[in-house]
Amino acid sequence: MVNEKKLDSIIQKIHESGYDGMLLYDIKNIQYVSNYKPTSIAFCILKENPVIFTSKMDMENAKNTSEITLKEYESIPQVIKSIKSEHDKNGTKNDINSGLLIEGSLAFNIYDKFKQDFKIKQSDILEKERMIKTKEEVDKIKTACNIAHKSLLDLDILKKQEESFSELMASYELGMLIRENGGSEESFNTIIATGKKTSLPHSSPSKEKMKQPILVDWGCKYMDYCSDTSRTYTYTEKEAEIEVIVLEAYNTAIKSVKPGKKLCEIDKVARDIITDYGYGDNFIHSTGHGLGLDIHEKPNVSKNDQTILEKDMIITIEPGIYLEGKFGIRIEDTVHVQNKGKVLGKLKPILN
Amino acid sequence: MVNEKKLDSIIQKIHESGYDGMLLYDIKNIQYVSNYKPTSIAFCILKENPVIFTSKMDMENAKNTSEITLKEYESIPQVIKSIKSEHDKNGTKNDINSGLLIEGSLAFNIYDKFKQDFKIKQSDILEKERMIKTKEEVDKIKTACNIAHKSLLDLDILKKQEESFSELMASYELGMLIRENGGSEESFNTIIATGKKTSLPHSSPSKEKMKQPILVDWGCKYMDYCSDTSRTYTYTEKEAEIEVIVLEAYNTAIKSVKPGKKLCEIDKVARDIITDYGYGDNFIHSTGHGLGLDIHEKPNVSKNDQTILEKDMIITIEPGIYLEGKFGIRIEDTVHVQNKGKVLGKLKPILN
Repeated sequence: MVNEKKLDSIIQKIHESGYDGMLLYDIKNIQYVSNYKPTSIAFCILKENPVIFTSKMDMENAKNTSEITLKEYESIPQVIKSIKSEHDKNGTKNDINSGLLIEGSLAFNIYDKFKQDFKIKQSDILEKERMIKTKEEVDKIKTACNIAHKSLLDLDILKKQEESFSELMASYELGMLIRENGGSEESFNTIIATGKKTSLPHSSPSKEKMKQPILVDWGCKYMDYCSDTSRTYTYTEKEAEIEVIVLEAYNTAIKSVKPGKKLCEIDKVARDIITDYGYGDNFIHSTGHGLGLDIHEKPNVSKNDQTILEKDMIITIEPGIYLEGKFGIRIEDTVHVQNKGKVLGKLKPILN
Repeated sequence: MVNEKKLDSIIQKIHESGYDGMLLYDIKNIQYVSNYKPTSIAFCILKENPVIFTSKMDMENAKNTSEITLKEYESIPQVIKSIKSEHDKNGTKNDINSGLLIEGSLAFNIYDKFKQDFKIKQSDILEKERMIKTKEEVDKIKTACNIAHKSLLDLDILKKQEESFSELMASYELGMLIRENGGSEESFNTIIATGKKTSLPHSSPSKEKMKQPILVDWGCKYMDYCSDTSRTYTYTEKEAEIEVIVLEAYNTAIKSVKPGKKLCEIDKVARDIITDYGYGDNFIHSTGHGLGLDIHEKPNVSKNDQTILEKDMIITIEPGIYLEGKFGIRIEDTVHVQNKGKVLGKLKPILN
């Protein structure tokens, strides 16, 4: 949960936009404002006196974790009726008259039920607030990076490769090390791609024996906050040649990170280098993304993201070159925006 | 992917509802109709000649898995423009004039962009089709159940408890066994709850040593299809007394499964038994849910679900009693609706 000061600032922004409250349905948004992580349907009405509607099944869990007023969720009509006729402790009517902000991610069939009764407007207040991390959030992400990095070193993947481990079992052992080292779980399904499959940026680990090269894209959660790192172990001269280009794009992009720059400018720095070497068409994804409670959050380090970098954003920088049917190389780190970009963790970008 | 016959029947139903096509954004819906499992943004326009818009990053993967025509996704305006001005091989105009069906789960901000250009209507065609499993789907779910069950027996959780394993490490070892036994991954984060925490239906495994009783709710995926099972190991007389009640509700609910019944009637069978014993308020969730590519699919075995059971639906039956601050007991199996309900897998409902 963010601190009370930040919560007050969010509620103030809701009011400044001319609305009484905001409907939260996204699990991570509810966790962000309340510390309660729903495991079943839940709604938070974020307003002067916020209230969370949660399932009977989750009530004990919610009581143990959140300080926000709880009500048992029965149905959407019940939620609507309740927030339309609410009174505070002093008997003052405290309902939602001016309308309700909603998240962009809200499912159509839920929007459709609320829109009968409220003036509705989509708002990115939560996404924007979550972009700027508090000191506590930065510390958690940094710890997650350190745990993830130590776990990869503990895994000794080159030895696993010699021992004919499958991609699946190597990724599974990495997960065990993450837990032993203090992480709670992977922040996404670990990618261990080897051989030709490294040219698929989102390959799934298979039961086949590990081949060469080896691309690992992995992360863990520490107190619900995510890390995200990629490393590639190269073997041939051609692979090493491509690796040097990716490394130059990675280093230059990280050096270009500072408050005031646009995210699309950071993407351009990495993309221009790779394009100059003739591999522009082989850099088939964005240069990076924000992360926090979710593994992908705003902003994007992409061609089209005009967001301006601010202090205490945390983004990944992950240039890659993918040669279909041959191999792919990616180097990725998690970067904290201070006066310049600071890589979280101390794992060298090239490990073999 | 479902078979071609089923795909044709879905497209026919779209036309019967007076629309030219349906916009699919849900990853599992796209996988269901195409066999391609998106790892990044993707849209499928399901129509006479379906087309999938996929990211550059996913293109190689999509080409390898799907037979549906692929286009590279650039932006939503590009998708809109493309499907508004499409011609088939013979030059016949083949665009979406009559409007576009959407999924209930579609994010508001995507709906909002399409609604400018199309008459939009929410449809549950895909949800309804996915409720009725093909023989291939049933076989995959059955195999997933068998792998999951064997893995729990291999784990020997009572020994792990004696050896002072933590809930987290026991659940992790169960995951490894699932992979060794032929599953690809867990179908959801394994719940191993012990001691008082068994009263939280969705407890997360902690690093604390395992206590008594032990509740395990776990499943695996086999060829992308999910299993879902729960077992509770009881120790005290009081726990055994509650277990007998849950078992009666479980057995009677399964016996009541047959085509033609309403889902809410099945829920009532289990709920009435537990209520008769005085624990109605302690059965704090629904009796079950559908499953398939997703761990939770339609229909729900709940108070409010009026859906009528049909042959080849697959649902869970999972009554439970939760005594806050004391303990909880749940017994769950995956049930295939034939002329009567057939439990998938052969694991005894009570294991100690």
